[in-house]
This record gives sequence, structure tokens and C-alpha cells, in this order.
Amino acid sequence: MTQAARGETFLAEIREQPQALLRLIEQASVYEEAARAAVERGPHIVRLVGHGSSDNAASYGVYAFGIASGWTALRDSISLSVYYGAKLELERSIVVALSQSGRTPDVVAYVQRARDQGALTIGITNEPKSELAEAADLTLPLVAGPERAVAASKTYVNELAALVLLASAVAGKTGEIVDQLGAAAESMAEALPRFEDAVASVAGAFAYVGRMYVTGRGIEFATAREIALKLTETCRIAAEPLTSTDLAHGPVAALDPLFPVWTIASNDEALPTIVEAARRAREAGAMLVASGNAHSEIDGAAFHLPVPAAPSPLLAPLLSVVPGQLFAGALALAKGLDSDHPTGLTKVTLAQ
Amino acid sequence: MTQAARGETFLAEIREQPQALLRLIEQASVYEEAARAAVERGPHIVRLVGHGSSDNAASYGVYAFGIASGWTALRDSISLSVYYGAKLELERSIVVALSQSGRTPDVVAYVQRARDQGALTIGITNEPKSELAEAADLTLPLVAGPERAVAASKTYVNELAALVLLASAVAGKTGEIVDQLGAAAESMAEALPRFEDAVASVAGAFAYVGRMYVTGRGIEFATAREIALKLTETCRIAAEPLTSTDLAHGPVAALDPLFPVWTIASNDEALPTIVEAARRAREAGAMLVASGNAHSEIDGAAFHLPVPAAPSPLLAPLLSVVPGQLFAGALALAKGLDSDHPTGLTKVTLAQ
Repeated sequence: MTQAARGETFLAEIREQPQALLRLIEQASVYEEAARAAVERGPHIVRLVGHGSSDNAASYGVYAFGIASGWTALRDSISLSVYYGAKLELERSIVVALSQSGRTPDVVAYVQRARDQGALTIGITNEPKSELAEAADLTLPLVAGPERAVAASKTYVNELAALVLLASAVAGKTGEIVDQLGAAAESMAEALPRFEDAVASVAGAFAYVGRMYVTGRGIEFATAREIALKLTETCRIAAEPLTSTDLAHGPVAALDPLFPVWTIASNDEALPTIVEAARRAREAGAMLVASGNAHSEIDGAAFHLPVPAAPSPLLAPLLSVVPGQLFAGALALAKGLDSDHPTGLTKVTLAQ
Repeated sequence: MTQAARGETFLAEIREQPQALLRLIEQASVYEEAARAAVERGPHIVRLVGHGSSDNAASYGVYAFGIASGWTALRDSISLSVYYGAKLELERSIVVALSQSGRTPDVVAYVQRARDQGALTIGITNEPKSELAEAADLTLPLVAGPERAVAASKTYVNELAALVLLASAVAGKTGEIVDQLGAAAESMAEALPRFEDAVASVAGAFAYVGRMYVTGRGIEFATAREIALKLTETCRIAAEPLTSTDLAHGPVAALDPLFPVWTIASNDEALPTIVEAARRAREAGAMLVASGNAHSEIDGAAFHLPVPAAPSPLLAPLLSVVPGQLFAGALALAKGLDSDHPTGLTKVTLAQ
């Protein structure tokens, strides 16, 4: 096996995302089966657990279940159950545990415990023969194909798709969401070459940036978290995700011209809050990057990274994360870092 | 009225915290009444909402309700209801809305909507005649006294106390928690002069620090969030709160000797995860500040800021936040900033 050039694996996996999405859609009937089991269990509290990119996907799950099926979903505290042994009522809960590798120790421990206490447990993983798959009642495959770069890309996008597919199946709308996910895969495939060109011309300006905020709200907060994580792990930038309102509640005080703010502006009901947060960040002297399908609503941005319109507002995050992934890869290269092998990280995080 | 010297108001309000806590305890019967109304409403899902420091307190509420009363509490998404209009089942929910001023617009809008949909709504606020108090079914006073510095201090500590008092009252343990909160107020009063001396000797070393991580897990994650927010708003540091496991899942890659990590190590079941995260951060070259009542468990820390043992593990955050508040005040002074009036911020955040 020849050694891949710096960052080539990460880039190749980002480019594979449209195909990975199409593979996931083919699994729709497996997701429908899990949805039926979930519907039988009521009232419907969905407890999402995961770490890193999987926890970022869980942020999206809150909106996927809330909007598509009217169910309350929460990013549950793993430590409350696993470390503190809290005795919560779990019999009527549906646990959705996310782990690319299926080997994250405390996620597996959480699932074992919840299953013992009577919850319906569903594992979403790229490794259907993993510990997680064994621990859970049901396993939903991510079918993203092998992911070798330490920084997740296609497994994250497929986790988003898996969550919205499950939530839509619960609402009896599998056919509709499958069509929309197919259309999203097509838009992504078309946009990828444009995204790659666009980030190449922006990344150079960020070579000396040490800190950034990434802001999104509601449906797009997961995107803000995931882009911030990519920048942190591959580019060694202290990039913090903030909702638009969190940004205004304090961090705006820290901004200056060397402190860029990446803004994810997508066409949905939370857009006005992002436009306003961007205005305040610019007033505080920050340099703005405007991305998302409503990037043109952001006034005074130094850079624009347009994203095509999504088949529905709920699917926007599948597309808006991609320029962030590519930007992280391009910036790592500009900084002389290897995005395939970030310092001090391994693919499977065994830390508790 | 004479003009207070730079940062004097913030410091005075931190010093008032023990007295503010004692005032809160006197309200125990009002909290018991709300607890009775909450118990009548079942099954028990507690939806916590707030922004900024109040949202940080809500992170603590998840553990206070989970551990003291065995109820599931979640930091609910405000945007899901207020902006996206998701139709969730709320009739069996208990909403606990936190706002120092009682005027945060989307928190008030969330409460109005939840009440219309049949939730039991409880407002916790320092302003019992505010819009929040008017919108909620029940109001629990913070009685912290007027808070004038933009950066919250005593209202945050009293929000923690209010949440643990309410959760303990639900479990029929009001007497016990009142005694423990009284003991915590006493420990805090005794420790304050020592804390002030200790931070003064550490703050000087941080004058040129631009970014920091603050790490805590479980019960103490709220403390990590609140200390990070104080540092960001008063010292213009990009300080990001991370759980010990989040730190290991990526951000550890960004660390270097100019990137300090503030570690909150308290004696509870999550302590081993903090010790391990600190070890990895040190290996990555970060300078460590070890705080909390188990600070001595952290090997190789450059600085120690000891905190006295709490009356119970669940009350540790009331004490461990104080050195962080004082450190932020001292560092702001060292940087020539006015912690009473951070750039670009106002006391009541009206941003949505």
C-alpha cells in the first residue's frame, strides 16, 4: 500500500460523501423497521448519546425528531447514568446511540445499562459487528464504507441522514425523505468541485489565525459544532461553536480583527437571529465568513462560501458542513499540517 | 453616587455570595410549594431553559434533578419551539425557566408557549415582577439582591442553589439540603479571602494568554462553562468549556504551552475521567491549572487553586466556581480591562 499524501485520505472521504449517502438510502427498510419498534414504545422520549462528531450529529437529532416526528429528543448525559448511577425512569425511552466505530466505551456502557432498565436501544454505527451493535436491541448501519482519516467526514454526514431517516420513518414519511436525501446527494456531488475551488482561495488568509467562533442556530447548530471540531483537530485552531444567542451573551466581548467568525446562514425560521449575531460580531471588529444557503443575507462578510439550497430546511446541514470540512483540509495543508493524522489523536477515542 | 473603581462592583458581588445563599435558604417554603405542584404533574420531564450564565446553571440542573430526585431534566431547545414551531407533547412537562432579569425575550416566549400547551411553568428569577414572572405559573425568587456588574456572579450561584433546592424538595429532602446549603455558604465565606490571595498570584502569569480550555465533567461541567464565560466576557480570552471526554476527542490536538487548561477536579465518580484528560493535556504540552476540591489528584499542574470540600458532591459547584470568578476579575485587572463593563455587552441581553 502506498503512503497517501498529506490530507489525501480526508479529502477522498469528503468526496465520497454523496455515494455514502446513496448507500444509506438503500437501507431505508431497515430504518423503517426500527421506526415501527420505536412507535410501539410510548410516550416518545428519545435519548441520544455519542461523543465528538457523533455528539454533534445528536444535536441535529434533537431537531430531526422534534420537527419530523414531534418527539422530544435530548442529548442525554452519559455520566449521569454511567458514573453517578442515577435511577431514571427509562422503560418508556428510546435510546439512539451513535458511534462510528461502535467501540466508544462509555457509550456502550450507557446502552447496556439502559437496555437492562427496559429502554428500547438502537445503535447507529459504521461497524455492525461492534460492541455497540452487540449491546443494542437494534442496529442501524451507516454503510459509509471504511473511514480511515482520523477526522470523521462521511460517517458524520451519514449519521445526520440516519437520524432524519429514522425520525421521518416514525412519521410515516420514508418515501418522501428518501427522495429528498437522494436530491441532497446529487446537489452535494454537483457542488463539491465548486466548494473545493472556493475554500482554496479563502484558506490562505487564515494561515495565522489561532482562534475562531463558528455560529449557527437551531437546525444548523450541529454544523457549527462539527466545523469547529474539524478546525480544532486538523488545523490546531481554538474554534468554538456558539449559537447566535450565546455569541451575543458574552463572547462578542472577546472579538477583534484577528478573531474570525464563521457564520452558517441557512433559510429557515432561525435565520434572523444569525443575521443579527453576525451584525454584532462585525460591529465588534470580527472578520466574517458567510456560508450556508442564505450566506448573501450576511452583510459585510469578508468571504462568502455559498451552499446550494437544500431539498428541505431540515436537510440543509448535510450540505452546509461540506465547505467547512474542505476548508479545514485546505487550511491544514496551508499550515503544513497533516489532516489525516492530527497530533495526539487516534481514530477510535477510548477516553471515557 | 461615586464611580466604583474598575472591577470593584464585580468583586463586591462575588464577596456577597455567601449572604445571597443564606437569603435563598430562607425562601425554602416557597420552593417546597413549587415542588409539590411539580410532583403532582407526572411523568416527570423537566425542561430547563435559559441563556448565558442561566444556561450554564441549567447544565447543573440536569444533575440536580437526576441525582436528587431521579427525574430526567434536559436543557430544552428554545428555537425548536419558538422559531420552528415544533408540536411537542408538553402537557406532562415541567418547565423551569431561568433568567436573572426575567426579561430574556425568547425565554419568555418559550414559557408563554409552553404554558399555553399545558406545561407547568416555573420561572426562577432575581426580578419577581418581570415579564418572566408574569408569564410563568409559579415564580421562585433568587433573592440575590441587585446585581450591577454585567458579568453575573451571585445570581449564578443562587440559580444553582435554587435548582438543587427545588430538586431536593421534590424528593422530600428540604431540611437536609437547607442545612447543606447553609454549610456551603459558611465554607464559601471562610474561603473567600484565601481564594482572593491565591488568584492574585496566578493571574499575572496569564496576562498574554489568548485562548484556554476549561474542563469539568458531569456535576462540574456547569462550573467549566461558567468559568469559561467569565474569562471570555471579562478578559477577552477565547475560553472554551469542554467535558473531559470532549477534550480527548479532538481539541487535545490544538494544545501547546501557550494554551492553558483549567481543570476542575472534584471528589465524585467522574473524577477519574478528569485526571485522565488532564494527563493527556499535559502530555500535549499544555500548562495546567488544577482547581476543585480534588485538585491535588492532578499531576504536574503549574498552578493549584484549592477549593474546600463540599457538604455533598452535588454541592461542589457552588464552591468551585468562586476561584474562577475571582481569577477572571484579577486577570481583567492585570490586563487593564474593566470587568464591570465588558466591551460590547449590556446587563440584559435582548438578543434572541
